Amino acid sequence: MVNPIGADGKLRVTYEDVHLIIADAAQRIKVEYDPELLILISGGGLFPGRVMRTFLKRPSALDPTKLRNIPTQAIGLSLYEEVAGTVEGQIGREVVRTQWLNEKTVKGLKHESVKIEEGKDAGGLLGKRILIVDEVDDSRTTLQYAYQELHRDVRLALDAMTAEERAEVPVTKFATFVVHNKLNEKKGQLPIIQPGQEEKVSNGIVEGIRYFAGEETENVWIAYP
Amino acid sequence: MVNPIGADGKLRVTYEDVHLIIADAAQRIKVEYDPELLILISGGGLFPGRVMRTFLKRPSALDPTKLRNIPTQAIGLSLYEEVAGTVEGQIGREVVRTQWLNEKTVKGLKHESVKIEEGKDAGGLLGKRILIVDEVDDSRTTLQYAYQELHRDVRLALDAMTAEERAEVPVTKFATFVVHNKLNEKKGQLPIIQPGQEEKVSNGIVEGIRYFAGEETENVWIAYP
Repeated sequence: MVNPIGADGKLRVTYEDVHLIIADAAQRIKVEYDPELLILISGGGLFPGRVMRTFLKRPSALDPTKLRNIPTQAIGLSLYEEVAGTVEGQIGREVVRTQWLNEKTVKGLKHESVKIEEGKDAGGLLGKRILIVDEVDDSRTTLQYAYQELHRDVRLALDAMTAEERAEVPVTKFATFVVHNKLNEKKGQLPIIQPGQEEKVSNGIVEGIRYFAGEETENVWIAYP
Repeated sequence: MVNPIGADGKLRVTYEDVHLIIADAAQRIKVEYDPELLILISGGGLFPGRVMRTFLKRPSALDPTKLRNIPTQAIGLSLYEEVAGTVEGQIGREVVRTQWLNEKTVKGLKHESVKIEEGKDAGGLLGKRILIVDEVDDSRTTLQYAYQELHRDVRLALDAMTAEERAEVPVTKFATFVVHNKLNEKKGQLPIIQPGQEEKVSNGIVEGIRYFAGEETENVWIAYP
């Protein structure tokens, strides 16, 4: 499936390539994780997320013969070069939120009177098997940030509940999918749950995050369409 | 560019088709409108928006030799069949928000201390040429809702400012782009500014909305990839 790397050292992929990589990965993800909510990291995760969504439909509870899209949220994260004023060489990379989920999106609309069709609800993050989608895992900085902050939001929302309310919420789980994982030194850290590793639950959230990559590539520039 | 309609009456389009339609439309949109902010209606608008973004880069103010992505936000809207309990036939369609912009995103981060690279900022909606992106304009219900609500958010944010603050904000403009516009009876209404029509400004916002469609199609089922 991996395209040859061009004379310019770039790995070129087409929409069709990405679609096929995701079709393949989605089968595995469906069986091993069966996500209930997608969180797309904009802009890279938008196209992969849109494709992934079509493969992760779940039967409607109202009419199990019908398949419904699972809820999809987008967050905006950008890496930005932070150039410190005076100290030469002191260049870091920082993650900037350009869009985030509001509190209602985290907590869900449990008490809203309107009956919302499945796959179209804003059912919140709590108690869900969440899949965070991005295009490429390069430095892992963005993924680390996304996971930490989403985890924190869920943690805070759960902590704000009464013990009775919390008891009704299933365990929240995190996983991530990237189309390409570059095999390089990662600056960001993710507490990855290895395949076969037993899940540990800590106050209503599974510790760590499942990790799915469509393909692993050398540390080359990937030219998306 | 329009593919033949299949024996099943569906118009099939590929990623490549959508890409080419957008490449074509983007040239026109760039010249006639030059958007500064994209708002993608999820899920349909995610892929078109991602493609559109690559064609709408703008020169960096810091280094005009470099092109930067324009800021991109996603909103989630779904049409849902509202079945009234007792009155037979009384079936309407309602738009449900599954994700929306928070206040900070509407107003921007003008007073944040962090220096944010262009194209990565969360510079808000105020004073921008906004382009709302979706896949298809079918009943127009979703587009009407998106425009009305975004307009309302901008209106409220402007009204909450002092006269001095407001005087510093350029005029806010709205436009929309859809890959396909179905030539059918529209249920939703948009106050479309016709080409060549003079713009009228009302309290800091241009009245009405520019409308761009990649292609116009018959009233057929469009099978996106």
